[in-house]
Amino acid sequence: MAKHKLFNVAVVGATGAVGVQILRLLEERNFPIAELKVLSSARSAGKVIKFKGQDVIIQEAKPESFDGVEIALFSAGGDVSRELVPAAIDRGVICIDNTSAFRMDPETPLVVPEVNVDKINEHKGVIANPNCSTIQMVHALKPLYDRYGISRIIVSTYQAVSGAGVSAINEMLRQSKDILETGSTKPDILPVSSLPVKHQIAFNAIPQIDKFHESGFTYEELKMINETKKIMGDDSIEVTATCVRIPVVYGHSESVYVELKSDFDLSEVRSLLADAPGIVLQDNPAEQVYPLASESAGKNETFVGRVRRDLSNPRALNMWIVSDNLLKGAAWNAVQIAEYIAIEQE
Amino acid sequence: MAKHKLFNVAVVGATGAVGVQILRLLEERNFPIAELKVLSSARSAGKVIKFKGQDVIIQEAKPESFDGVEIALFSAGGDVSRELVPAAIDRGVICIDNTSAFRMDPETPLVVPEVNVDKINEHKGVIANPNCSTIQMVHALKPLYDRYGISRIIVSTYQAVSGAGVSAINEMLRQSKDILETGSTKPDILPVSSLPVKHQIAFNAIPQIDKFHESGFTYEELKMINETKKIMGDDSIEVTATCVRIPVVYGHSESVYVELKSDFDLSEVRSLLADAPGIVLQDNPAEQVYPLASESAGKNETFVGRVRRDLSNPRALNMWIVSDNLLKGAAWNAVQIAEYIAIEQE
Repeated sequence: MAKHKLFNVAVVGATGAVGVQILRLLEERNFPIAELKVLSSARSAGKVIKFKGQDVIIQEAKPESFDGVEIALFSAGGDVSRELVPAAIDRGVICIDNTSAFRMDPETPLVVPEVNVDKINEHKGVIANPNCSTIQMVHALKPLYDRYGISRIIVSTYQAVSGAGVSAINEMLRQSKDILETGSTKPDILPVSSLPVKHQIAFNAIPQIDKFHESGFTYEELKMINETKKIMGDDSIEVTATCVRIPVVYGHSESVYVELKSDFDLSEVRSLLADAPGIVLQDNPAEQVYPLASESAGKNETFVGRVRRDLSNPRALNMWIVSDNLLKGAAWNAVQIAEYIAIEQE
Repeated sequence: MAKHKLFNVAVVGATGAVGVQILRLLEERNFPIAELKVLSSARSAGKVIKFKGQDVIIQEAKPESFDGVEIALFSAGGDVSRELVPAAIDRGVICIDNTSAFRMDPETPLVVPEVNVDKINEHKGVIANPNCSTIQMVHALKPLYDRYGISRIIVSTYQAVSGAGVSAINEMLRQSKDILETGSTKPDILPVSSLPVKHQIAFNAIPQIDKFHESGFTYEELKMINETKKIMGDDSIEVTATCVRIPVVYGHSESVYVELKSDFDLSEVRSLLADAPGIVLQDNPAEQVYPLASESAGKNETFVGRVRRDLSNPRALNMWIVSDNLLKGAAWNAVQIAEYIAIEQE
């Protein structure tokens, strides 16, 4: 067997909800690593993590940190990416960025490998990982787009708190405990940590993820609208989104109504979904089988069910799409891109 | 002041989640009651409840229970209504039925007072109370229907466990406690108590409420589709629904996309909603104000927010509609109907 090329890899934001999963996946997938740099904010620098049984000391992420690095995976927030991705690119690093910093930059490929893997090679140093709620939706819709075309998507989301980070997970669990024990609680992080108004997430549904745009849509909703068009490479797709946070730890669920451009056969739709890479069709109403956030947690796949022809529009489908927002929605999609780059450079 | 007529009233299903609220509202509203009969299954018969400070003994509901009764409010399940409503009608009782037993019967008015109060007088002994998720939606959409017309509705729901009764509330709270304390739990009631497969509701989202129809829609979804057309009195409205249970105790939330038949001005839409009876407009994105299930609990109103023009279809609106499913969604709507009947017979 030929000797494989090994890469110097950096992970930025190693202690965050996504960074932890990126490191786990690099280990589990046996990613061809020569040297691993684990980078974070000054606050976490000096801490030690285990990687393949070895201690790795977390270092503060600085421009010089990227000297000698070949592939870097960023998930430390948009501000960190805006500052350090250009510095890494200057040092010849290929960056995979999990923040929104470069997603809509026309020069930056926005990639879900099952949808548009061919775009990776057009990169100018950075490939953007899409928003979690967008990834699972376009992943599930791609086989239908290719076969029938898509004219319109109307999606309402049921998003897990882990999308807002470890502190939001802890807040939701603490609030749940408070309410079970005392009947009340005090919110302090969600819906948006940087905004003044806080709302209870335990035993509730908050129709706000990210800040509001002047259109009345949130930026999370606009991400779903704009990123879907960019990833599909089709600005003619009309997309409407309502993004809602619910008290789930891992796994985003989505209620999706999609209008196709041509007639379809429902059994063919099911076959297309069942055969698509990374998609698991869980769709048997008679046995009460459909995707559940609780069962998607920890898995890399996107799960699809409740597939049914609309009763008022015969060219429309309704479906329920679930995936672990930290995995296919973030870390796994990023590691898939890294694996593609590694294979291309073999 | 003229002496008001008093009524002999029966409440059937007095120990259920809705029955308890009906009794509370009859007391709070000072409903003109001569004699109150509190009826239930044999299992609860003999228990004592308080009504206006007086002890009332729960009696087993039988056909003879309705002798001398003038108004009866039923919320003991469809089977009980199918058996006892005809017996009550035979005895001259006006029945207000909160189950699905008579809702789609062409002879039976299906009433949300703010939408079609005029239908009450067409009754043949029974007036049906619509499904909880339908009531709040048609309540909020009625002022828009009257002004602009509605061609299509696409709704995804975020429904509270109290819609499945007291046992489902207890199950969700128990499961939450189990998971917080031990990391796992065992489901035994939801999604549908009479079906074999059970799914975890705590920290999850279950896309099944009621059984499945052969179309792939659930009966809960079909109720929203069919009841909306009947209440609005317009079979041309196209409705699509996806109904989802989430871990909330009280208050259904709904993400609603609605296509209007004519152009609209967004400020006029807000005025129409703000001025509509029983509607509270909570819509100020700059201040992060929007309806929340947690704040709707215990209130009779329907709350509307996130009102925004669709970005792809200028004749479409998106909105977020929240109401306490046990109150406007059940008990309060039924008591409103009872109050209308009482006033008509003054």
